Amino acid sequence: MKAVGVIVEYNPFHNGHLHHAQQARAESGADLVIAVMSGQFLQRGEPAFADKWTRTQMALDAGIDLVIELPYVYATAQASDFAKGGIALLEAIGCSSFCFGSEQGSIAPFLNSRELLTERSAEYQHLIHEAVQTGISYPKALNNAYLSLTGNGAGFADLTQPNNILGFHYLEAAQNSGSSMKPLTIQRIGANYHDPIRAGLPIASATGIREAFFKGESVDELSSYMPESSILPLKNMEQEYGTFGSWEQFYPLLRFTVLREGPANLKRFAEITEGIENLIYQSAKTANDFESFISLVKSKRFTRTRIQRMLTHIYTGFTWQLLRSFEAPGYIRLLGMSATGRSYLNQTKKNIKLPLVSRAAELHDEMGKLDIHATAMYLQGMGSADLKKEFTTPPIYRG
Amino acid sequence: MKAVGVIVEYNPFHNGHLHHAQQARAESGADLVIAVMSGQFLQRGEPAFADKWTRTQMALDAGIDLVIELPYVYATAQASDFAKGGIALLEAIGCSSFCFGSEQGSIAPFLNSRELLTERSAEYQHLIHEAVQTGISYPKALNNAYLSLTGNGAGFADLTQPNNILGFHYLEAAQNSGSSMKPLTIQRIGANYHDPIRAGLPIASATGIREAFFKGESVDELSSYMPESSILPLKNMEQEYGTFGSWEQFYPLLRFTVLREGPANLKRFAEITEGIENLIYQSAKTANDFESFISLVKSKRFTRTRIQRMLTHIYTGFTWQLLRSFEAPGYIRLLGMSATGRSYLNQTKKNIKLPLVSRAAELHDEMGKLDIHATAMYLQGMGSADLKKEFTTPPIYRG
Repeated sequence: MKAVGVIVEYNPFHNGHLHHAQQARAESGADLVIAVMSGQFLQRGEPAFADKWTRTQMALDAGIDLVIELPYVYATAQASDFAKGGIALLEAIGCSSFCFGSEQGSIAPFLNSRELLTERSAEYQHLIHEAVQTGISYPKALNNAYLSLTGNGAGFADLTQPNNILGFHYLEAAQNSGSSMKPLTIQRIGANYHDPIRAGLPIASATGIREAFFKGESVDELSSYMPESSILPLKNMEQEYGTFGSWEQFYPLLRFTVLREGPANLKRFAEITEGIENLIYQSAKTANDFESFISLVKSKRFTRTRIQRMLTHIYTGFTWQLLRSFEAPGYIRLLGMSATGRSYLNQTKKNIKLPLVSRAAELHDEMGKLDIHATAMYLQGMGSADLKKEFTTPPIYRG
Repeated sequence: MKAVGVIVEYNPFHNGHLHHAQQARAESGADLVIAVMSGQFLQRGEPAFADKWTRTQMALDAGIDLVIELPYVYATAQASDFAKGGIALLEAIGCSSFCFGSEQGSIAPFLNSRELLTERSAEYQHLIHEAVQTGISYPKALNNAYLSLTGNGAGFADLTQPNNILGFHYLEAAQNSGSSMKPLTIQRIGANYHDPIRAGLPIASATGIREAFFKGESVDELSSYMPESSILPLKNMEQEYGTFGSWEQFYPLLRFTVLREGPANLKRFAEITEGIENLIYQSAKTANDFESFISLVKSKRFTRTRIQRMLTHIYTGFTWQLLRSFEAPGYIRLLGMSATGRSYLNQTKKNIKLPLVSRAAELHDEMGKLDIHATAMYLQGMGSADLKKEFTTPPIYRG
């Protein structure tokens, strides 16, 4: 059986995701779609809107065949490490291709860009380094360096677009790991990454859907932006927790943690650099809600996403030391499967390159224990008392 | 002007406290009563039922002339260190005597006990050490050693009684610091330390009053156990926070903190010894409320009080390292005063041996910063968003 891989968050699963999954299957000619999906904390440094079990249900009910968990250490990392973890898992589970959504929509410009940057790597790194020294943010430095190498940019990937950037890193990770998976890309349709919802259009960004929900729209009112299959899992989640995940919801625990640790200790947590611990601490003293807090901490130097990743690591207690102890994924955590997904696992079991883990209790790897820990931290942010849920929830099966 | 000192928690201020304050004034012949009062966390290792400002109001309205804060590091310490801090502050502010409530009710047995243990100190320490090796709790070991030295105990203080124990430590602290304050004691009346309330008796323990409140009695229903002056401050506190302080109220933040830190980090916090960090961590995983949690952690080896002190330090992030950095109080933090209290300060200002601090912003001492920190931690446990309260609340004046 031939599998195509996608690297996703599905936060929540919407019509754009459905389109992407269907096109990935069609373009690749694969028998099944395998999703590597982030756990409870996401790449923008946020607690997930819907927990990983709810997102797994949405994925399976929309036609994804296998959902495996992208470990916390990758799921909450900057794009290059996020991509590294996702690609490593898709490779390990035996995908013959992987497919990402992009603004660009065709693969050639990405291949051209990879080739250019591989050939002129030293020059590229030097330009980035110089730009960072002037005080601009890393993503901006990267983009400026890239623009100066590609000239007018024709024929190359446009790396000002968020999905193009991720796609570029997927290719980089695949190339660096010597993967033989074929890269594919699908054009994203109808909504940009952060676009708010717009009446009459069936495609909205996940960000737009989340924002609309927190502004008071109900799951039902947002149903035109999602496949029918997303509605029930989201309603069940809302009933279970009384709310969905957001930094606003998690802020009392985050604030307590920041103030309890104090600046000297805050430095221990992953991604905290250059004295920002003082600003984080001082801002938590005065800000009574998350939006006020983050607006005090944001600056030209650090993007909101980067700061949120720091906050995620403070919240979970994830240190530089632990981050540096990890090298590559050591397991494949199965979150859910369709009948086709199960057949695939049965047929390819002996070719899968990492241990397949179905139950939290089987996770003895430090990276996996961190995923269990992140779930306990997430559930407390959600106000749940059922902290054993990670251990009592088996992989979801849709036969 | 002549001052008598008392070391108190007033959690909350009840008829027994009123009796003690009045008797202290009478016995000492002093012009004013000065209370050194614990801040937001108490000696039994608990968040205060009423915050320190509410307790200051109750004290002033019941006739106390000066209220100064016992710093966190002493207020949450075992009896000997608690006593050391309290005595040092009473000495520094110029009291000519100090007066404690005791089950014993007369000072001679305490003086006899102090003399005996000073003379036979090595033997006493050896007996304690041996007993602890057999696995019994430290307070019990201390008591057994003491009993074996005093024979049938006649003429000596009965150190099985909680207030006698504290009194004994006050004498010890005064003696060790070379204080010239005269020790006085008043017999406690009507209720033992932990006794529940009993209808028809005007005296109940503070523990009994707190328990009755959490079982559903209102402040008004408990008014027969407290002077009239305690009622309004307690009602104001209840209105402000919607509740009173307790571990049950603070448990979600405590649990989050325990689970976030994990056993290896928990060892860093003050009083955590002998592997109890593992039990604390495992118990937090499963216990959904504080009573279930503490019942899993309690053991023959550690009293509930001792464990609660560990939990207090985990909650506030107070480490062994910080604990060991402190030597003696470096300031006197003024929480409130009557007109008499103010006259006393004006008259004796130049004889006061430590800087008198009226405002949090003037506290630059590490010990004082810890008090400010403890207040921020307490207010978050109480669900208050007004974390600047420590800085915006001046000393309370009752003219």
